[in-house]
Amino acid sequence: MEKKTLRTECPDAVGLISKITNICYKHQLNIIHNNEFVDNTNQQFFMRTELEGVFNDQTFLYDLDQALPKGTQRQLISSARKRIVIMVTKEAHCLGDILVKAMDGCLDVEIAAVVGNYDTLQNLTEKFDIPFHYISHQGISREEHEAALLQAIDQYQPDYVVLAKYMRILTPEFVAHYPNQIINIHHSFLPAFIGAKPYQQAYERGVKIIGATAHFVTNDLDEGPIITQNVIPVDHNFSASDMARSGRDVEKTVLSKALGLVLDDRVFVLNNRTVIL
Amino acid sequence: MEKKTLRTECPDAVGLISKITNICYKHQLNIIHNNEFVDNTNQQFFMRTELEGVFNDQTFLYDLDQALPKGTQRQLISSARKRIVIMVTKEAHCLGDILVKAMDGCLDVEIAAVVGNYDTLQNLTEKFDIPFHYISHQGISREEHEAALLQAIDQYQPDYVVLAKYMRILTPEFVAHYPNQIINIHHSFLPAFIGAKPYQQAYERGVKIIGATAHFVTNDLDEGPIITQNVIPVDHNFSASDMARSGRDVEKTVLSKALGLVLDDRVFVLNNRTVIL
Amino acid sequence: MEKKTLRTECPDAVGLISKITNICYKHQLNIIHNNEFVDNTNQQFFMRTELEGVFNDQTFLYDLDQALPKGTQRQLISSARKRIVIMVTKEAHCLGDILVKAMDGCLDVEIAAVVGNYDTLQNLTEKFDIPFHYISHQGISREEHEAALLQAIDQYQPDYVVLAKYMRILTPEFVAHYPNQIINIHHSFLPAFIGAKPYQQAYERGVKIIGATAHFVTNDLDEGPIITQNVIPVDHNFSASDMARSGRDVEKTVLSKALGLVLDDRVFVLNNRTVIL
Amino acid sequence: MEKKTLRTECPDAVGLISKITNICYKHQLNIIHNNEFVDNTNQQFFMRTELEGVFNDQTFLYDLDQALPKGTQRQLISSARKRIVIMVTKEAHCLGDILVKAMDGCLDVEIAAVVGNYDTLQNLTEKFDIPFHYISHQGISREEHEAALLQAIDQYQPDYVVLAKYMRILTPEFVAHYPNQIINIHHSFLPAFIGAKPYQQAYERGVKIIGATAHFVTNDLDEGPIITQNVIPVDHNFSASDMARSGRDVEKTVLSKALGLVLDDRVFVLNNRTVIL
Repeated sequence: MEKKTLRTECPDAVGLISKITNICYKHQLNIIHNNEFVDNTNQQFFMRTELEGVFNDQTFLYDLDQALPKGTQRQLISSARKRIVIMVTKEAHCLGDILVKAMDGCLDVEIAAVVGNYDTLQNLTEKFDIPFHYISHQGISREEHEAALLQAIDQYQPDYVVLAKYMRILTPEFVAHYPNQIINIHHSFLPAFIGAKPYQQAYERGVKIIGATAHFVTNDLDEGPIITQNVIPVDHNFSASDMARSGRDVEKTVLSKALGLVLDDRVFVLNNRTVIL
Repeated sequence: MEKKTLRTECPDAVGLISKITNICYKHQLNIIHNNEFVDNTNQQFFMRTELEGVFNDQTFLYDLDQALPKGTQRQLISSARKRIVIMVTKEAHCLGDILVKAMDGCLDVEIAAVVGNYDTLQNLTEKFDIPFHYISHQGISREEHEAALLQAIDQYQPDYVVLAKYMRILTPEFVAHYPNQIINIHHSFLPAFIGAKPYQQAYERGVKIIGATAHFVTNDLDEGPIITQNVIPVDHNFSASDMARSGRDVEKTVLSKALGLVLDDRVFVLNNRTVIL
Repeated sequence: MEKKTLRTECPDAVGLISKITNICYKHQLNIIHNNEFVDNTNQQFFMRTELEGVFNDQTFLYDLDQALPKGTQRQLISSARKRIVIMVTKEAHCLGDILVKAMDGCLDVEIAAVVGNYDTLQNLTEKFDIPFHYISHQGISREEHEAALLQAIDQYQPDYVVLAKYMRILTPEFVAHYPNQIINIHHSFLPAFIGAKPYQQAYERGVKIIGATAHFVTNDLDEGPIITQNVIPVDHNFSASDMARSGRDVEKTVLSKALGLVLDDRVFVLNNRTVIL
Repeated sequence: MEKKTLRTECPDAVGLISKITNICYKHQLNIIHNNEFVDNTNQQFFMRTELEGVFNDQTFLYDLDQALPKGTQRQLISSARKRIVIMVTKEAHCLGDILVKAMDGCLDVEIAAVVGNYDTLQNLTEKFDIPFHYISHQGISREEHEAALLQAIDQYQPDYVVLAKYMRILTPEFVAHYPNQIINIHHSFLPAFIGAKPYQQAYERGVKIIGATAHFVTNDLDEGPIITQNVIPVDHNFSASDMARSGRDVEKTVLSKALGLVLDDRVFVLNNRTVIL
């Protein structure tokens, strides 16, 4: 008996749930959890099905492909642990949170390596017996830097790249290398305060709530599909740096929650939005 | 073309989703939304399906009954507006909120009548052209009072009875008359501060968060299945009466949200818990 | 024995609290509550003091003026009920909330009148025995419309003008007529989604949290000093109109909370930010 | 120039703020922040004043003692880093959070040692170069165990003892040894679900929100003065162990926030409540 997750995405049509669940039934696969969603604007159907049983992947997927409409994307994903590489700059809180969660089993993930453009977090990373690659951006071009990053990351063949307060902008080439595989934490409640120094911006605007946003990285800065957001109240007593300090707990919680959803194969992307099943 | 909602509840078994969606497909009913849940502890299956099409209720339900296991409860509910009676004592905020929401279409409900054990809210009710029944509990026994309440309420044959800060305890006989049809708002984050004066209790305990709980009424005081809860932060500046004043917005929001879920046929009861699909 | 509130705002200096509280002490005024704040960036001091005793306003203020630095703004405000005029368009929820709260004492305010550019809410307003002025903007110039609005409003000499989902932009001339006296509710978590159709914008951006913002109105659209904000979670199931419906409870709660703070003389404005004591 | 914090607590009387700030003024100490609170029920006055200047502690305190009523408790606290000992059992998340926060300066504290009744967290602790004392409770009496704990802890003379998911009940003797110095995190929204297995209790009650509570430890289990609480939403999809996993982020955030407030000398205790200035 094995557990696998089926992800289905296709143009909406009558009878899709029936067809998919029939095939599961025919293959004697028990449905443990099932969630589906139809986006009415785009007439797109999404379904995530946790299955248990004895799988013959080939015949099961063949049956699905016969039954489902053209343009269907379907994946049958084993429950094997996924692998990530984490990119950082200097701030410890997001990295520290993922390290502790991976250690105590709260996140079921293998951290293959941490890559930093400063060596500030090398010590913390190595405490957890994880390789740290210090790849400074200083004195080289952006292209050279990203080439070095890619080389370091690619050797681990990660399922996802996690930007845990990596403070440099990535080029479209870098992003295209890991499509919908890069997760970033932005320290504002997007789309408010895009770009640099969001807490300073928040302070100057006099907002009464600050937040953080985890999103997939696309070519547009801070514009990718949002996975998770959360907020905390602030007031006139908060300076910009008070906001930054208080915001850390939100940032790390939002990032690791988003990461957990992605690792559970729950997140679908539809244009610039996410469907989380 | 009509819209109806199918609610199914039965012991869990392999192939239930497949069977139900097959029957929908066979009857050419389009599934607009579908949500299901299996409670693994109790091995109980729940499903809520919004359907659109031309319904032959009799043959559709017959097919379901043939296909589904013994002990299945299923309802096919038309989208007709439901009717409620609201019971109140003296506080205006929950009643006022429901009155305005029913007026502006935010809650799709017919308020048949309001029943109060004081006449404090008669004026507010009648502003909205809704009959108010003033049935004082003074000078009569609890049994006499409840008999008068039942008589007043029953004439409207309500789908639900909403206790919008009705401050008297109801007997098991009254409750049994409307099983899982009475919705109450309790002004605490249950199970904290059961019973009288929860804000005073909260003040004395020095909590930093207060809340409100909407639940179905059962025989045990404040112990029925919880539908919705929400909270707000408080601090040492709040007296018990400050908490009460601030809590009003939470109470009314929680109650009307719970009412909306119930009116949408989303709430299932499993022992003392709710499943909201 | 009377209660009054002293508001003091001046350039920061050593000994300000001492000086002010000394004068209160000298006048045998008991301090019930006191809050102060120093904005270090602007070196500006703010203090709000609730006093109880027998007041000689003239000598008390004279003593303050002698003691405090040049440029001090101070007000001694009686606890008399304040008067507001509410401006609306078509949506009932914010107006309804303020009407019920004023009726049941949850907001200590006199609603002098409601002014609408549609007559949709005339009926609701008059249920509460409050005059409604229907002043359509159709067929006349913006200047003519605002002149008519001002004429209607000014006769009531309101302390504050509350825009309870008034959906037209006001000119700088109108705003200048009531400096820091106009409170608006914007149906987004500002500065996200400035301008029209914020829920549609929020839907398209795929945010996971929506909110509302109450702020003083200045000449820049949705850019005035923020008084209160709050948010609720949403997900992919929410269409733009679902967001709008769910957002109503946040809008009305945020607006009436901001109004309560303003009526309590708690809100100070410093550049584009508020200090709430 | 030095910074110190003055904490004053005494029976309420007219002119207290004036008297205290006058003495600060006389000693040419600049008030950076000042917060005060009067508990009207108990007629008790609390004030926390951040001061900057050249301190002569002896004469300053002498002046205060002359001016303030009998029964006044006042402390003038230097801004030196405080020292804590952390007690743990097996769960890593609260300890991990404090270790990372102390490392990156988010919490300004010296972690003198960690004491565990299991050795599960020895490895994590020692990664951060902090001594770990493994003191098993097995095979010895409660008195013997606590004697060993006290011996281990006392050598560090901690300002506070932090129970970071220490899962054994402490005797009144142990608690009396560190009065108002022991901070505990309880994994429920107290007073709901006192005692063992709060997430199991929460699951069985069917609550829609779970929380965590940081409080000072007194002799009554989970009944001490509450410092901080926070909550997260849950629904029928959450098993008790899902709640436990999701609750971890709340627990650690609540505990470290409470610890930060205590370390900043912001928390006063009044009977069973806290005043946080």
